[in-house]
Amino acid sequence: MTIAILGGTGPQGRGLALRFALAGLPVAIGSRSGERAAETAAALNAQLEGRSAAPISGVENAAAVNASDRFVILAVPYSAHDETLLDIKGLIEDRILINIVVPLAPGNPRAMAMPQEGSATEAAQALLGPDIAVVGALHNVSAHTLNKLEESINCDVLIAGNSTEAKAEVEGLIAKLGTAVYDAGPAESARCIEAITAILIRLNISKKVPFSHAGVRIWAPSQQ
Amino acid sequence: MTIAILGGTGPQGRGLALRFALAGLPVAIGSRSGERAAETAAALNAQLEGRSAAPISGVENAAAVNASDRFVILAVPYSAHDETLLDIKGLIEDRILINIVVPLAPGNPRAMAMPQEGSATEAAQALLGPDIAVVGALHNVSAHTLNKLEESINCDVLIAGNSTEAKAEVEGLIAKLGTAVYDAGPAESARCIEAITAILIRLNISKKVPFSHAGVRIWAPSQQ
Repeated sequence: MTIAILGGTGPQGRGLALRFALAGLPVAIGSRSGERAAETAAALNAQLEGRSAAPISGVENAAAVNASDRFVILAVPYSAHDETLLDIKGLIEDRILINIVVPLAPGNPRAMAMPQEGSATEAAQALLGPDIAVVGALHNVSAHTLNKLEESINCDVLIAGNSTEAKAEVEGLIAKLGTAVYDAGPAESARCIEAITAILIRLNISKKVPFSHAGVRIWAPSQQ
Repeated sequence: MTIAILGGTGPQGRGLALRFALAGLPVAIGSRSGERAAETAAALNAQLEGRSAAPISGVENAAAVNASDRFVILAVPYSAHDETLLDIKGLIEDRILINIVVPLAPGNPRAMAMPQEGSATEAAQALLGPDIAVVGALHNVSAHTLNKLEESINCDVLIAGNSTEAKAEVEGLIAKLGTAVYDAGPAESARCIEAITAILIRLNISKKVPFSHAGVRIWAPSQQ
């Protein structure tokens, strides 16, 4: 059950690759440069040496999509969002695109610069067309946390998308990382979910809170 | 240090009145009907009998604003948001307007119907003009939780507004309720904060989560 992570050489992509490999799922890291992807994959496999983990490979983005059995995670910077999707649009077929991209404002990660469609999730859906299932997810989990393998992830995952069936599959996938996953509704809900990231970054930068790499949790009444 | 709560006869307003009174702050509940406000105030005072609490009074909205020393909380349904603000605009003077109104979609509380300005907080700021400080706050705390006085509030409070000074004062006020309060940035951040409410309502309605009246928490790494 190989998962593709496009933009997998970035900090978010690397952290996710490590976490999914440790959960027993082979990962194909994609990058514009297959060489750089292969180097990153080798470094991540070395990092996991001696632990029980599935293998991580590194190839060009298109080859990563082709290697994926079901899930293609888009983890590029927002500036490469549309271009990467246009490049692989014809290859996705019946796979599910999991979009973790957050449209932070250029030069100001404490603010959003939402695309005309309302959110990156909606923009990706518009770009890929209605026949490809797009699920926004994993926006609020910090790269730092993902890469700190000795710690559990301090963040629940809110997902949004227009296909209930695809969301159920993505819920099952992300639950393997040990986090709570909540279906937050249609793609439009990603306007809120993606924007939570800018608020968390603002808190992390602020000197008024006693921590960085904040996450967000859904909390039940009387839960301690 | 009397606080005005406009729309204070609704479930959110009543819960806040009880919580602030228990924190030692006198409350003037405002309503379009002074009679209804007085009835609600009497019921709330009766509910607090035997406990150490400041008094709650009930008057017309305009009189509640006049009774307020510093903070005017707007807790009306979104359908009455603009009209109520227009009614009291000339009375606010150097007080701070705390806007807790969430523009839920009519007939569908799981979705938003944001005003043209982007959020209720921004709409209120536009309507009142730049000389009056508007702070969006308390959107995500469920009315049920506010009214369950034996339980602590299961929700952090994210606030947004364009005046740093006003936000610092509002932080101090809300902290008296025993919740963590985080400055989430300028009024524009309210687009996200207000929309979290619709997601929480969706989770509450959904049969897939084992609780209702969900709140949201900012979570540090390695926090248990």
